[in-house]
Amino acid sequence: MDQPLQDVLQVHCYGCGALNAHGLHIKSRWDRDDLLCNWQPEAYQIGHPGYVYGGTIASVVDCHCIWTALAQYCRDTAHSLTEGPPAVAFVTGSLKVDYLRPIPIEGEMMLRAHVIEASERKSIVACSVFHSGIERVTVQVVAVRTKLGG
Amino acid sequence: MDQPLQDVLQVHCYGCGALNAHGLHIKSRWDRDDLLCNWQPEAYQIGHPGYVYGGTIASVVDCHCIWTALAQYCRDTAHSLTEGPPAVAFVTGSLKVDYLRPIPIEGEMMLRAHVIEASERKSIVACSVFHSGIERVTVQVVAVRTKLGG
Repeated sequence: MDQPLQDVLQVHCYGCGALNAHGLHIKSRWDRDDLLCNWQPEAYQIGHPGYVYGGTIASVVDCHCIWTALAQYCRDTAHSLTEGPPAVAFVTGSLKVDYLRPIPIEGEMMLRAHVIEASERKSIVACSVFHSGIERVTVQVVAVRTKLGG
Repeated sequence: MDQPLQDVLQVHCYGCGALNAHGLHIKSRWDRDDLLCNWQPEAYQIGHPGYVYGGTIASVVDCHCIWTALAQYCRDTAHSLTEGPPAVAFVTGSLKVDYLRPIPIEGEMMLRAHVIEASERKSIVACSVFHSGIERVTVQVVAVRTKLGG
């Protein structure tokens, strides 16, 4: 399996940065045309007892969707992250999270995301979150393309 | 000024629970017909360096909007939280966050929320996040009414 993108391009973000000592450290990998992320919350990241906090879910999906937009851009432009960040970066313009079913705090959640629309100005990313094989949360992120340099 | 609602009704939630040792500990208070929250992030809760992480913003607004739905329900039914939780609870059905401008990591953010629509099944809450007097983020939360007992 490929190395996680966040281990190749290391940033300071609380959600996904390898360089953030306090962060969530999500790891995203290609699986054919989707980007996958398996992630295990800490026992204290609960909303109601026994279930993952919705804000933590929103955090994990936000980062994973932004990496999906970036990864698809790199694939489309034949840019390898091993050469450093591409010429553009993506930031979250909007985040819509639909909580269909609660996610148990025990065990991993699995995120599967892909770009459903891309233009010069933005990419729209759809993501589903599964636990025990059941879809629990659906997400749509508008990732705005910028020239921050990564 | 009234005591924050989360100090009266103490829960375990990572975002707002007084009983969660690791959490964000947001505090929400009535201000006329709005619910206010002033909150200061930790230095490491960044997305890009210098700016608050979007997932942390989503977390803080999620909890504040759920407390807004609960507080309005209590006001409408003349229930005081000092007597314990009301007969219903609210959980997040959906969360929509629009990131208009970045929020600097230095200094407090201020959230102002109110219920824009309420029915037997759900309340819709609108929230804006300000920093240095400028609106940075707008939010809409669908808070689903349940009988979890708080």
